[in-house]
Amino acid sequence: MLYTRWIFLWITWTMAQPFAIAVHGGAGHITPHNLPPEKVQKIEQYLREVVEEGYALLNQGRMALEVVEIAVRRLEDAGWFNAGRGAVLNEDGFPELDAGIMDGKDKRVGAVAAVSQTQNPITLARLVMERTPHVLIVGTGADSLARLWRLPPFQNQGYPQSETLWASGTVGAVALDKYGNLAAATSTGGIPRKKRGRVGDSPLVGAGLYAENGVVAISTTGHGEYFIRSVLAYDIAARLRYIRTSLPEAIQEAFQQRLEPIGGTGGVIAVSPTGEIFFHFNTPGMYRAGKDAKGTLMVGIFR
Amino acid sequence: MLYTRWIFLWITWTMAQPFAIAVHGGAGHITPHNLPPEKVQKIEQYLREVVEEGYALLNQGRMALEVVEIAVRRLEDAGWFNAGRGAVLNEDGFPELDAGIMDGKDKRVGAVAAVSQTQNPITLARLVMERTPHVLIVGTGADSLARLWRLPPFQNQGYPQSETLWASGTVGAVALDKYGNLAAATSTGGIPRKKRGRVGDSPLVGAGLYAENGVVAISTTGHGEYFIRSVLAYDIAARLRYIRTSLPEAIQEAFQQRLEPIGGTGGVIAVSPTGEIFFHFNTPGMYRAGKDAKGTLMVGIFR
Repeated sequence: MLYTRWIFLWITWTMAQPFAIAVHGGAGHITPHNLPPEKVQKIEQYLREVVEEGYALLNQGRMALEVVEIAVRRLEDAGWFNAGRGAVLNEDGFPELDAGIMDGKDKRVGAVAAVSQTQNPITLARLVMERTPHVLIVGTGADSLARLWRLPPFQNQGYPQSETLWASGTVGAVALDKYGNLAAATSTGGIPRKKRGRVGDSPLVGAGLYAENGVVAISTTGHGEYFIRSVLAYDIAARLRYIRTSLPEAIQEAFQQRLEPIGGTGGVIAVSPTGEIFFHFNTPGMYRAGKDAKGTLMVGIFR
Repeated sequence: MLYTRWIFLWITWTMAQPFAIAVHGGAGHITPHNLPPEKVQKIEQYLREVVEEGYALLNQGRMALEVVEIAVRRLEDAGWFNAGRGAVLNEDGFPELDAGIMDGKDKRVGAVAAVSQTQNPITLARLVMERTPHVLIVGTGADSLARLWRLPPFQNQGYPQSETLWASGTVGAVALDKYGNLAAATSTGGIPRKKRGRVGDSPLVGAGLYAENGVVAISTTGHGEYFIRSVLAYDIAARLRYIRTSLPEAIQEAFQQRLEPIGGTGGVIAVSPTGEIFFHFNTPGMYRAGKDAKGTLMVGIFR
């Protein structure tokens, strides 16, 4: 009897815990003029599916870390975005991918940069976190780990050059699970025609992503150099920790006071410890979707 | 007549402006038991020379950015420290160096990681800042830039394996110049027997270095993974910006509240906008030296 009572209490407890997820497919010069209506519909549909899938997993009790990895894998596999299969090429004509993942529970991090031999750098990043004593592994060293761990090889679907204007996006996901854990993940192909070996903000903790239980989970997108120089993701977290401002204010002030004065453009997605989700960008558009703790679904591309 | 008066005013002004420099050669298990007295004397002498040279350059009116680059080059060339000529080897038996430099005036940054073909990665980092639109370039991409820009090739002097206990150090420098500019630079060979491609905190803005005029310049050393996960350098700056605590308190609290709870060990050097310098470490020793705005010289190794 006691046993069934505990099960009942557990079910009641988990049903009452907030959970939420948000994803992005990049911010940039995305307008109704350069994105045809049929693409709008397809991309919005895809983002909605990714969010609904992640939300269902969280509802089943899966951890935030797992869910952001799964969501980012889906965005890497899409070929719609500048990450995984859809990655742009560097100046030497081949893709070099960057990705990072962070678990807000214990501040563990895994990241890879300038990798060319796997389609899912976010999974390689997670394995770096779980199977090595390191946090960030780059270049051929990271590629040889991808082979060692038998990750599926990279299959570039060929970036649609004529469509660069709309497919400008880094991808990312943030989530809150039922146990109060926050997690963030970001993955990108970087800037088209970048110098070989160039690394942007996406794999860098504090710049392209940050997660800390009780504070916030953030994933950013945009012109990476400016996000690195302004340490944007951790600046938002620091405002929450030290000024105790609200999350939307912290995001807005970080953009106004740090990113924009040096000329940076881009966007962020964030989830709070109570399952609110926020989107912010200073570009014409950002591919984005999310479902908050109240079950409200949001999907959008333009302002 | 007016002309000589302006020259006189300029000289008076520059003579009244504070300037300061601090350098480190790494923190670690450095004790009087494993560091023989003759090494203590030699290393202290070398650190003193680097500081006096930098201080003299600042007094002549050179910029903080130049001076931290010159100081770090001297430490890379020494062969005493785990950077430049003295770098440790990775698991595959060759050195892979990381370095980063930041100008607090305009938050410009240059960094390189996992480079093997130049002895002075700090200079390569500065050239990345000045000659490319990027902030961080890694691996073979960075090595090919070193060749393109004709930097002197790497000449490993062979890391003295028997002396690993005392020569455990990343190197770094922070400076304030007469024009109120702060700058920071950090350079390292990383962890001995690290996986190929592993990048530590040294080249990462917000982790291994940070500089912002009117706030602080910081260079860190220690177990890099923990400094990355706690975004330590920018956390100190954020405390100064948002809590308006004192610099020594900000450093101590960042260690106690962020680095130490996850098990991190290491040290930092910092210079304030008024030319005070601070050293802090939670290891038995840190190679360190500095000269503050009052002209006080400090040199030390042990607690």
